[in-house]
Amino acid sequence: MTADGLRIGICGLGTVGSGVVNIFNSHGGLIRQRCGVDLRLTHIGARRDNPDCDLASYRVSRDIFEVVRDPDVDIVVELIGGTTVARQLVMEALEQGKHVVTANKALLAEHGNELAAMAEQRGRALRFEAAVAGGIPVIKTLRESLAANVVSGVVGIINGTGNFILTEMASAGRSFEDVLAEAQALGYAEADPTFDVDGTDAAHKLVILSSLAFGVPLDKDGPFTEGIDRVAPEDLEFARELGYRIKHLGIARRQQAGLDLRVHPALVPEHRQLSQVDGVLNAVMIEADAVGELMLTGPGAGSLPTASAVCGDLVDLGRTLAGITGDPVPILGIPTADLTAQPLLSPDAVTCPWYLRLVASDRPGVMAEITRLLGDSGISIESLIQRPPQGDASHVSVVMLTDRVSGGQIGSAVAEIEMLSALKGGVTTLRVENFEEA
Amino acid sequence: MTADGLRIGICGLGTVGSGVVNIFNSHGGLIRQRCGVDLRLTHIGARRDNPDCDLASYRVSRDIFEVVRDPDVDIVVELIGGTTVARQLVMEALEQGKHVVTANKALLAEHGNELAAMAEQRGRALRFEAAVAGGIPVIKTLRESLAANVVSGVVGIINGTGNFILTEMASAGRSFEDVLAEAQALGYAEADPTFDVDGTDAAHKLVILSSLAFGVPLDKDGPFTEGIDRVAPEDLEFARELGYRIKHLGIARRQQAGLDLRVHPALVPEHRQLSQVDGVLNAVMIEADAVGELMLTGPGAGSLPTASAVCGDLVDLGRTLAGITGDPVPILGIPTADLTAQPLLSPDAVTCPWYLRLVASDRPGVMAEITRLLGDSGISIESLIQRPPQGDASHVSVVMLTDRVSGGQIGSAVAEIEMLSALKGGVTTLRVENFEEA
Repeated sequence: MTADGLRIGICGLGTVGSGVVNIFNSHGGLIRQRCGVDLRLTHIGARRDNPDCDLASYRVSRDIFEVVRDPDVDIVVELIGGTTVARQLVMEALEQGKHVVTANKALLAEHGNELAAMAEQRGRALRFEAAVAGGIPVIKTLRESLAANVVSGVVGIINGTGNFILTEMASAGRSFEDVLAEAQALGYAEADPTFDVDGTDAAHKLVILSSLAFGVPLDKDGPFTEGIDRVAPEDLEFARELGYRIKHLGIARRQQAGLDLRVHPALVPEHRQLSQVDGVLNAVMIEADAVGELMLTGPGAGSLPTASAVCGDLVDLGRTLAGITGDPVPILGIPTADLTAQPLLSPDAVTCPWYLRLVASDRPGVMAEITRLLGDSGISIESLIQRPPQGDASHVSVVMLTDRVSGGQIGSAVAEIEMLSALKGGVTTLRVENFEEA
Repeated sequence: MTADGLRIGICGLGTVGSGVVNIFNSHGGLIRQRCGVDLRLTHIGARRDNPDCDLASYRVSRDIFEVVRDPDVDIVVELIGGTTVARQLVMEALEQGKHVVTANKALLAEHGNELAAMAEQRGRALRFEAAVAGGIPVIKTLRESLAANVVSGVVGIINGTGNFILTEMASAGRSFEDVLAEAQALGYAEADPTFDVDGTDAAHKLVILSSLAFGVPLDKDGPFTEGIDRVAPEDLEFARELGYRIKHLGIARRQQAGLDLRVHPALVPEHRQLSQVDGVLNAVMIEADAVGELMLTGPGAGSLPTASAVCGDLVDLGRTLAGITGDPVPILGIPTADLTAQPLLSPDAVTCPWYLRLVASDRPGVMAEITRLLGDSGISIESLIQRPPQGDASHVSVVMLTDRVSGGQIGSAVAEIEMLSALKGGVTTLRVENFEEA
């Protein structure tokens, strides 16, 4: 730190990195005014330049580790992604006495406990507002605004790519593969969209949110995770007919017996605000004892929105670190030594209403058999739609909403139904999230 | 300040004060864990006890100024309301070297410049998250999370009582007076609901939001202000028929020629999230250059939600003031000396689409005359509904949506229409807020 300011080094010049450079290029004066100290970008490390931003005012290194070792850098911004080199980079930055800001949810979900403890021991900041829900200030809200609340739940749409795909499938009746190809062409989805599609990206974010909400260590394997690829266009149609939308949700709830952490597509009642959050938007709902229910909606990805969150962290550090050496805000909301693991609920034990869809031969007695199997498992049917699938008069599509039952109960009932010879294909099962107490 | 902590004194033990005491009574340990210092409630000043909270652990004074003069108090929480004694109290607290947290929007709108400058000079904190939109962290979002953004607009539903009344009128077709009486019985509206009904309360909040958003001094007379009392049940019905809801909005926008600050009921397209925010909920939408559009929704009033915001400020101060003496976050986002007034736009100059409703004799030529008067003023009609008012066959109700025109144009056209002998009563005029560029 110079007498009058803090100098920032950026590692990684992709979408988010170039956004941060662009914000400092255009708003550097404003940032310094609001910050009260000379917060200044000095050094960029990237394998290659990015034509989307002007680097003329900065030292540029091809080796990102030169940024970390630069004595003229006080804060390292890690934006390279991945978990191996990124972990090395953050560790070396902390060893060199730098503060760290990162947007890397995979890194935090996998190595966050180690990195937070290390930053804490060395009295250095580790900030990550941009790692969850892009430009939405959900980390700050949980860690600071709600610091006097016991949080009981966090439910969010926290993967913009997935939400874009489901929204397009629903509005145009298009197939998953078709919309995914368009999302890739538009640049919303990565060349390898696996983590967006299979729920891993949302699970990483949920791991971070649950640590802040419940004071538990980061546990990347905690959430039960399902992707959006199990949703067919007809599910979106039937859901709408029943008064619901299908959204890919991250759910973290504190229950009596433990934490309920899940990432999966779910039917959301159409009158809930969350069901109206479309396209690449993200939204996070927080249930807490003093405040009640808060909902934050905004862009969950993109160059400038995510860079806005990175820069918010940087201004915070500028403001607080000018007079003192360590971040006064605990990295994970409480000292890492106080983080306490809690038992995780098995998805088989958690109850909710369920959506079931199946195709069966249109012959007498089939429906009676299916409903008897459900009844024998103690499952009641709340709504039922039966109609022939398009251009197939010999079969019927059957869609049912059940009462609130456990994943285990549904699993065994479905296994029995799937053994019926009248069935064509398997049974699609989706959870219903109606925000009622279990 | 003791070696290891900060001691808090509360002045005022109404709805919010008792909420803060209850949170410290139940979550004191959690707050100290998250804060990292011994943040402790010590002294309560209130004319009388409040049966809703237990004061056994605290020193209690009937004279609130004893709290301010108590050498064992580091932070004074002002929750007495009003602007005269409250101003004296905050000034004396700052003079005594205390930090101040307040929920008092009227105080800030009227005396905020003076108080902020005084706190700044003395190196003391003045925090007020609870003053706007209750438990929603909108002050922190503007001042911290969006510190690297140029904010172009803030649009919000920032008076819960008003929103409750409009929601009830819309859903049950009840009159304003009828719903107001119920709101008072339910405790949502004050015994004297003037400030909620006439828009003053929302205007105070808008003044605070505009200062943070645009770096302008607080100017309580800045916003053009209209209340909800000008909305009739039939306006709510017609609006719905046209695809809109009527909401009482606070609008602060940066335009080329100056700031556009307005508080008034407006038609909001039903597909916008803001139109779905019902009952006592508040919502604030922020438009900013890097992040795009953020929306925060939650409880805008109530004992615990508002106390949650007060306690968030207290935890912030606990975290930051343990090692240093002054608040590192500037009170109004930038140093008060840097606040720069900007010209205010006259509501006559601001353009938007308009909703007009009138009742006229049902005789040939009347409609032609009305539409001619509008056309002569350069106003086009986008939609029109004409029908007899209930049980009155000799008249017609006429509702029109115009294209985007200025308040001045509408005002003079309406004055001419109101001179027509066929008119029964005046013309109801409401603005339409469709979030499109002017």
